[in-house]
Amino acid sequence: MKKLINNPDNVVLEALDGMAAAHRDIIRVHKDPNFITRISSPVKGKVALLSGGGSGHEPLHGGFVGLGMLDAACPGAIFTSPTPDQMLAATKAVDGGAGVLHIVKNYTGDVMNFEMAADLVKGDGVAVESVVIDDDVAVKDSTWTAGRRGVGTTVLAEKICGGAAEAKRSLAEVAALCRKVNAQGRSMGMALTACTVPHAGKPSFALKEDEMEIGIGIHGEPGRHRVKLEKADRIAEMLMQPILEDLPFKSGDNVLLFVNGMGGTPAIELYVIYRKAHEIATKHGLAVVRNLVGSYITSLEMAGCSITLLKLDDDMVKYWDAPVHTPALRWGV
Amino acid sequence: MKKLINNPDNVVLEALDGMAAAHRDIIRVHKDPNFITRISSPVKGKVALLSGGGSGHEPLHGGFVGLGMLDAACPGAIFTSPTPDQMLAATKAVDGGAGVLHIVKNYTGDVMNFEMAADLVKGDGVAVESVVIDDDVAVKDSTWTAGRRGVGTTVLAEKICGGAAEAKRSLAEVAALCRKVNAQGRSMGMALTACTVPHAGKPSFALKEDEMEIGIGIHGEPGRHRVKLEKADRIAEMLMQPILEDLPFKSGDNVLLFVNGMGGTPAIELYVIYRKAHEIATKHGLAVVRNLVGSYITSLEMAGCSITLLKLDDDMVKYWDAPVHTPALRWGV
Repeated sequence: MKKLINNPDNVVLEALDGMAAAHRDIIRVHKDPNFITRISSPVKGKVALLSGGGSGHEPLHGGFVGLGMLDAACPGAIFTSPTPDQMLAATKAVDGGAGVLHIVKNYTGDVMNFEMAADLVKGDGVAVESVVIDDDVAVKDSTWTAGRRGVGTTVLAEKICGGAAEAKRSLAEVAALCRKVNAQGRSMGMALTACTVPHAGKPSFALKEDEMEIGIGIHGEPGRHRVKLEKADRIAEMLMQPILEDLPFKSGDNVLLFVNGMGGTPAIELYVIYRKAHEIATKHGLAVVRNLVGSYITSLEMAGCSITLLKLDDDMVKYWDAPVHTPALRWGV
Repeated sequence: MKKLINNPDNVVLEALDGMAAAHRDIIRVHKDPNFITRISSPVKGKVALLSGGGSGHEPLHGGFVGLGMLDAACPGAIFTSPTPDQMLAATKAVDGGAGVLHIVKNYTGDVMNFEMAADLVKGDGVAVESVVIDDDVAVKDSTWTAGRRGVGTTVLAEKICGGAAEAKRSLAEVAALCRKVNAQGRSMGMALTACTVPHAGKPSFALKEDEMEIGIGIHGEPGRHRVKLEKADRIAEMLMQPILEDLPFKSGDNVLLFVNGMGGTPAIELYVIYRKAHEIATKHGLAVVRNLVGSYITSLEMAGCSITLLKLDDDMVKYWDAPVHTPALRWGV
């Protein structure tokens, strides 16, 4: 196992310390229980957004805390759900009186723990809504999930709902928007290589030199097919086709096209994929009016990519374009 | 070789097409000869900044074209210098009457070709200044270089000088600032794994499962030592010590600390390195007043990192903070 780490036990905490040192103008790291908030939190009268999940998917979620996006993030151990006490403490810390939206990726542990935290905090009089993101078209159920997994649409939901919350939309409105983003977003991923969880010390699965896994999850969960390595254009087709079939995207729709790197994929390859994905979307009559290219929801050092397509409405465009200032995503400020 | 590509011959052009499709609000891609400019170019009365080099280091340089940074970038083949005709065409395309600064990383081919292009364009009455970046403390001469290699400081020079050019500083002033940034910047890198040039089809060198290369170049050129893999904190020390010894950084200096990923390194590991590098800088009495963490000057899918330390003055801070809007770096706009 070759990693820039000191000890598998300390990776998450040391990375949090690094983030705290690097981004002290944006975030504050709280320990025991571990969570990240904006430096000035809570924001009075604003709906607060909280997300979280296992670590190893950076910059998701901690890298998205800041103006225009999340108010807090709860990092679990690598590929392990955070605990209800983290979520409870973070929820209380960011509630500015307008309630808190929990954005939850659909993994069994995350869903269960966020539910528990929501129940606990409601007892304290904090209004909480929860939205579960389940946008991965690859598989119906998977190793760690009943139903579809939550992947790339999470990043888009956090940005768009973050914009709506800054605009002082109500908790019910922000939650409804989040559900709509989830309903109109579809994703699928693939891997060229496995990744290695530090504690395990060996790759989560094995791919031969001429193989790839189509439909992979962000923890290396099995996908749809393990097949021979194909050219980039064919890979883009293999991801775009199930996405386009699943949601009735129709000619003339405005979409956001998000090509995401899994952590070990260089930018030059993501642009080769983007080229073809954009071409396929355009041939379908879709207008790619917004996009995102980069490694935003990762799986440690896995080589591979995912594609997310989100059907946009005017509100989504407005809130996507709104200013954002987080460690990993910044514009307009 | 596992890569998201179609054909080794087309990687650079297809990635350029992908960039053009994704960033049509910022950049324009010109073909034959290949170069990238801002969409509205030249900017009248502003010094233009041009850089370039072999591809495979993305987002450097094409990802840094836009307001507040470069006016144009010339991408060569993978790890191969662009040609003088690319540089000539790009220089002419971006000259707004105030002259053009060539920012050149110190590799023999790049230096020679930029010199040739500068000579040619001067015959056409365009004022050109050239600054060679040679900030890598790892080796005195290397496979592809007489003198030190140009690495991480290039990114910082492009941002800072880009800010100065937007502020309508003269060509002589922007060139002087660029020389000062180079004089006050020091870098060193390391690799956990090699990278594979698509045409070669196999890794440029071999590292055993328990080995790393300290002082690696961005083309996989040999560094100072091939040694046993160490913990992240020790690696940060092994990079920071030669940097701190080389430039007389002294207690009280303001610095920018840049922790860079080599292309295949996940964010979580960069923050573990940042944590220790920040601690070492602070113990030395340096005030880390600005920083950058991410994969900005890469070596395809190489796993590893580099550290750059830049001693700042007030002008550098002002121009670092100035608005920037490029595919890879954006703030204030």
